[in-house]
Amino acid sequence: MKHLLSIADLSRDEVDSLLATAEEMHDVQSRPIKKLPALRGRTVVNLFFEDSTRTRSSFELAAKWLSADAINVSAKGSSVSKGESMRDTLLTLDAMGVDAIIMRHAGSGSVAQAAGWVKASMINAGDGMHEHPTQALLDAHAISRHLRALGRGSLEGKRVAITGDLLHSRVVRSNVLLLDKLGAYVVLVAPPTLLPPGVETWGVEVSQDFDAVLPDVDVAMMLRVQRERMSGGFFPSEREYIDGYGLTPRRLALLPDHACIAHPGPMNRGLEISSAAADAARSIILDQVSAGVAVRMSVLYHLLAGEES
Amino acid sequence: MKHLLSIADLSRDEVDSLLATAEEMHDVQSRPIKKLPALRGRTVVNLFFEDSTRTRSSFELAAKWLSADAINVSAKGSSVSKGESMRDTLLTLDAMGVDAIIMRHAGSGSVAQAAGWVKASMINAGDGMHEHPTQALLDAHAISRHLRALGRGSLEGKRVAITGDLLHSRVVRSNVLLLDKLGAYVVLVAPPTLLPPGVETWGVEVSQDFDAVLPDVDVAMMLRVQRERMSGGFFPSEREYIDGYGLTPRRLALLPDHACIAHPGPMNRGLEISSAAADAARSIILDQVSAGVAVRMSVLYHLLAGEES
Amino acid sequence: MKHLLSIADLSRDEVDSLLATAEEMHDVQSRPIKKLPALRGRTVVNLFFEDSTRTRSSFELAAKWLSADAINVSAKGSSVSKGESMRDTLLTLDAMGVDAIIMRHAGSGSVAQAAGWVKASMINAGDGMHEHPTQALLDAHAISRHLRALGRGSLEGKRVAITGDLLHSRVVRSNVLLLDKLGAYVVLVAPPTLLPPGVETWGVEVSQDFDAVLPDVDVAMMLRVQRERMSGGFFPSEREYIDGYGLTPRRLALLPDHACIAHPGPMNRGLEISSAAADAARSIILDQVSAGVAVRMSVLYHLLAGEES
Repeated sequence: MKHLLSIADLSRDEVDSLLATAEEMHDVQSRPIKKLPALRGRTVVNLFFEDSTRTRSSFELAAKWLSADAINVSAKGSSVSKGESMRDTLLTLDAMGVDAIIMRHAGSGSVAQAAGWVKASMINAGDGMHEHPTQALLDAHAISRHLRALGRGSLEGKRVAITGDLLHSRVVRSNVLLLDKLGAYVVLVAPPTLLPPGVETWGVEVSQDFDAVLPDVDVAMMLRVQRERMSGGFFPSEREYIDGYGLTPRRLALLPDHACIAHPGPMNRGLEISSAAADAARSIILDQVSAGVAVRMSVLYHLLAGEES
Repeated sequence: MKHLLSIADLSRDEVDSLLATAEEMHDVQSRPIKKLPALRGRTVVNLFFEDSTRTRSSFELAAKWLSADAINVSAKGSSVSKGESMRDTLLTLDAMGVDAIIMRHAGSGSVAQAAGWVKASMINAGDGMHEHPTQALLDAHAISRHLRALGRGSLEGKRVAITGDLLHSRVVRSNVLLLDKLGAYVVLVAPPTLLPPGVETWGVEVSQDFDAVLPDVDVAMMLRVQRERMSGGFFPSEREYIDGYGLTPRRLALLPDHACIAHPGPMNRGLEISSAAADAARSIILDQVSAGVAVRMSVLYHLLAGEES
Repeated sequence: MKHLLSIADLSRDEVDSLLATAEEMHDVQSRPIKKLPALRGRTVVNLFFEDSTRTRSSFELAAKWLSADAINVSAKGSSVSKGESMRDTLLTLDAMGVDAIIMRHAGSGSVAQAAGWVKASMINAGDGMHEHPTQALLDAHAISRHLRALGRGSLEGKRVAITGDLLHSRVVRSNVLLLDKLGAYVVLVAPPTLLPPGVETWGVEVSQDFDAVLPDVDVAMMLRVQRERMSGGFFPSEREYIDGYGLTPRRLALLPDHACIAHPGPMNRGLEISSAAADAARSIILDQVSAGVAVRMSVLYHLLAGEES
């Protein structure tokens, strides 16, 4: 594997291999001394054209725990603000001799485009409304661990509802692709104004009746809603959004006993998810965060450790 | 010791132990090769909701010289700006598996509150107008070294005047508590409008006559005044502030020969402190900076090195 | 060598020694495992009062590949914004015990001034319109490698045209001084409004006829033009600038076959340089970026590795 650009690119074997290594990294992560020498002398750059504390920090920790050097470049204060093209920014970092560029950018497809320009491995940390592959992998990792802990087997045949602002989400695309590869069934729940264009071709169930969906799911994955979109014609009001699509305390009671609750964060508590749901014993939201570092260690390891052998 | 939240929490033994280790770290700091393996594989996060170059850099160097991994998270560009609650930000960093979170925040008591939420060790790098414990420890460390160099013993029985904007200062609270634990006498000098509420219950002398205080002190500690407060009803004018409370060249001559001058920085030269005072041979202002790294190495060592044994 | 403040300070022997070490570092940089233990336990600070992604990242990588610890301090969010003087900021970082301070500042001569205040080694990463010595060194390194690859010997006797906004450039001063030391001939090409004051005393050729200059050069070095200066009386319009001084596809054909094209970046494609020129096989622009890390490793090594022996 040279790049990680999208879930669509990955074979089932590659997914299994990434998730298996993530399991091993999870063990490293639970040790008091978190340090593997695997990527000593390798260098990764976090190139974030859009801010993201959690994704950037997660990749930075993953790199450091594998003994790689990591530097951060943000669009603010970068040559980008002096009018340099994205291509020249990438070629410049590449020419310095870095091994991987972890990139977040508002342009859908921008990271794959970048992969055509550079010698370094490109890792997609979110490209516009397109994909966010490590988020989908960490979701799968966290859900699988939860299912295993309950003795309920793998994601195969499980039912996952993804609810929220699916129109502006890159997480939903990556998750639908990955959950499908892993044999899970996906139901998308969102108001018609917040569904992605072309969703009817995705081969997944779509519903506007969250109450009807909840009793049959194994996982309720809630996605972030930008409050500013509530007044922009996407939806009448916060109140109506919560009524139709929020994981309220009332809806929590509709979930089967074994079902878990996921959210990629940052959460709008009281909007798409109630605190009762976010903090419930069945919430795996913090497990997702933890899985994020393990999965990113796995990705860095797969892309960068192999070159020597 | 699990957290460092306030000086109030520390026993005299804990203070002595932290300062003794700081002495050892001071020696490491003076070596050409500054690197101890003590915290290899441990990770600290600098989580600064308010900017601070000197405190953040000092903690970052302390962590690196002990071989810990350090990452920086600032409120700008963080999930905080996407409306995430402080609690969720902390739980997220904690779930990644970091060992310590060094936190500065405008809310008094915020760091202690955070300590109730996370598994990591919390270190208070300044919480609102409440406390800034490492500043007090480094002040004590720098003053003690100065006294020892002059052959004047310990802080026990010494007289320290703390002068300036005490109302908005977190340094003054931590210093009063620590100096008291170490047996020193404190005199607070400030205009009535810049005294903290309830200061009469602190059990320390308060004065508005800086000239009368100076001839008896061992240490003149000057605190920063925000210029913008001069026009806000706190004080009539800069000129009058300097006349009443500035460490001017004239007042410098009132100090006993052995007395030293301290300031936590950043300084407003020409306002609370004259350049004659800041740059005097008896100024320990840069020693305080140097002590800052040694004290923070000591704190990190005490909180994080013990877990293994 | 204690500091690197300007090319003017360097003897020819020092230049040769820096460039020879850069050759060795270039080899390290091409290895899959980029890591030398040379500066383990040394600490460098990137103190940037002005933003620069490429220079800051290049120094940061150079430090890390030599196993030094590196911390970043930017003017935004620093004590500077609280009104602290530049001198106090420097004395503070110095008192922490760092070994080198890499500084960029808008004030010409500011870094040399700083060198008079601190114990650390100062490295000039660009001071106002004065000098940018590592840029000149990396240019010389990249050009020399290009000449050697073509079997055309050293810079001695070669002809270098430097074209663009020379008035606001610190690169041009450092390059003229260094190329002269290395025996090359320099021609400056710029409209009269964009020539530096006193250029007639520099002992180099000045021309406004770019077409006439190009057929005789070995190197066409293009400098960045700030678009905002186009409307500020420096030049009538972008169109006229391109006509007179841009390295357009037409002008590209005027270059001798062996001549190379250089640019320190970030580029304004379509203004001072056409994409045809920037992306030509004879362009060494990305080699300059690569040379930047090697040269900065060399500089850090020369300033910091010697202290022990």
